[in-house]
Amino acid sequence: MAAEHFADRLTAAVERARTPLCVGLDPRLDQLPAGMLQRRLAAHPGEPLVAAGEALYEFSSRVLAAVAGEVGVVKVQNAFFELAGAPGLAAFAGTIRRARELGLIAISDAKRADIGSTSAAYAAAHLGTLSVGGVEVEPIGADALTVNPWFGSDGVAPFIAEALRRGRGIFVLVKTSNPSSVELQDLRSGSRRVYERLADRVWDWARGHLGQCGYSAVGAVIGATFPQELAALRAEMPGAIFLVPGFGAQGGKAEDAVGAFDEKRRGAIVNSSREIIFAFHKPEYRELPAERFEEAVVTACRQAKAQLAAALAGR
Amino acid sequence: MAAEHFADRLTAAVERARTPLCVGLDPRLDQLPAGMLQRRLAAHPGEPLVAAGEALYEFSSRVLAAVAGEVGVVKVQNAFFELAGAPGLAAFAGTIRRARELGLIAISDAKRADIGSTSAAYAAAHLGTLSVGGVEVEPIGADALTVNPWFGSDGVAPFIAEALRRGRGIFVLVKTSNPSSVELQDLRSGSRRVYERLADRVWDWARGHLGQCGYSAVGAVIGATFPQELAALRAEMPGAIFLVPGFGAQGGKAEDAVGAFDEKRRGAIVNSSREIIFAFHKPEYRELPAERFEEAVVTACRQAKAQLAAALAGR
Repeated sequence: MAAEHFADRLTAAVERARTPLCVGLDPRLDQLPAGMLQRRLAAHPGEPLVAAGEALYEFSSRVLAAVAGEVGVVKVQNAFFELAGAPGLAAFAGTIRRARELGLIAISDAKRADIGSTSAAYAAAHLGTLSVGGVEVEPIGADALTVNPWFGSDGVAPFIAEALRRGRGIFVLVKTSNPSSVELQDLRSGSRRVYERLADRVWDWARGHLGQCGYSAVGAVIGATFPQELAALRAEMPGAIFLVPGFGAQGGKAEDAVGAFDEKRRGAIVNSSREIIFAFHKPEYRELPAERFEEAVVTACRQAKAQLAAALAGR
Repeated sequence: MAAEHFADRLTAAVERARTPLCVGLDPRLDQLPAGMLQRRLAAHPGEPLVAAGEALYEFSSRVLAAVAGEVGVVKVQNAFFELAGAPGLAAFAGTIRRARELGLIAISDAKRADIGSTSAAYAAAHLGTLSVGGVEVEPIGADALTVNPWFGSDGVAPFIAEALRRGRGIFVLVKTSNPSSVELQDLRSGSRRVYERLADRVWDWARGHLGQCGYSAVGAVIGATFPQELAALRAEMPGAIFLVPGFGAQGGKAEDAVGAFDEKRRGAIVNSSREIIFAFHKPEYRELPAERFEEAVVTACRQAKAQLAAALAGR
């Protein structure tokens, strides 16, 4: 049986949750709830990375359990896990696995890219399987992966091929949310910007792989911090799902993200990370015991959902 | 005591080895010497990724031991290790560690990049340390890291900062060796190409951080498959060390790489991966027992060195 199309799965998850919010797991070790790392250190004396990996997994899996009834999609940031070495990568893969067990769509935010033969290895690592002595093992098993386009189409093609083979998706970095994204991405090339030329190319890659929902397994990352560009790209890439970072701690507002959606309010997911998962550090939660940090996470998640819903209703 | 400057360490390692050749470790699991994976599988029944990680480490550490007397620099490709999950990342970090123990300069070829706060985590993972309960741990501990420039300067700055703080280096992907690199990198922007504009920027980042050798801790990746561009960029980025991939299996010839060097035959390292580490698969080694695969590796390494030396002498 062919795997269900990624875009159809994502669209269904968003509709079930009644929100396009994606919760981003960027677990910084020095910001975990009080005592969480210390308990793991006590259990693993002399093994700091093992303790770190376990603490990252405990935090992430508790956030997942808290938000699983609230959203349909999560994005797991690889960097903060890789920083804890091999135990960190075990925690990363475990977090992706746990998210999928909870019925969430799990995006590996690892922004991988290389020449084709090497991209194929990254694609298999994040979206596919490794054959070990005749046994197929899923090293990470994410539903989707963020991909850097700098190498061009032969560097991206293996990610698309693996995604299609396995009912997974990719999101290509078309216009990133950081201020310096203008340096290369906004260079003028003829009558257009570099990112606009890339958008044409990504849409060429995407348009042949639409699900029943009308959206493709090949999507794009477009920052909420560039609302005009976001709305213009929506028109140019009609069947590409947009993964929109930059909402929340990075300064993008819910209103800035509305341009990412089609007229049926579909076609985009909007990510917020620190603003939600570290909400318990806000002054108003000073009295909240560390072991109940999830309460602040759920409240912040509901606030973000309400902000997005209001912005979408008001446009 | 301040750490010795990366460019000085690299230059010394190249001069000691009397070759700018860099051996690339891209260990594909299905191409390891006969029996190597199978022995690990027998030792770890039901743990295929553990077996894979151990086999990748055995192969890599044996290649390192074989080439340590031949070259001064190695480049370890992250993708083929990440494909074995957490045990693969343990093998990756172990390979980097082993290379440094053998006196080699070890480059993590992971091509990481993200927005600034996330790049800082990748930089610490590959080049720096993680503080765990007051203990500083080096998750990977490479001498240098390859970095993707797509996010612009605020995405690259944390890598530069970490490198400078710790006597390490970075190599920014300016013009990659794959055919499709032309799609974004060669777009015209005004009178220049995008990669040329990037080169100006990388040189701006690099020029303030020169070692005693006159080269910077910030270098550039430029493919041997584009020899004219390579020679032109050499003139435009006089103090940036070039890491030149594409020699060997990707089709670049030693002559194609000479443009990367300055008039003293310094300022570049030239990488060959599969052509060396998997040399034992060539027909002429059909009779070589698998347990002696290193003999083919050393021979191929010496051939590559001789090709580079001849090309450099002949220009």
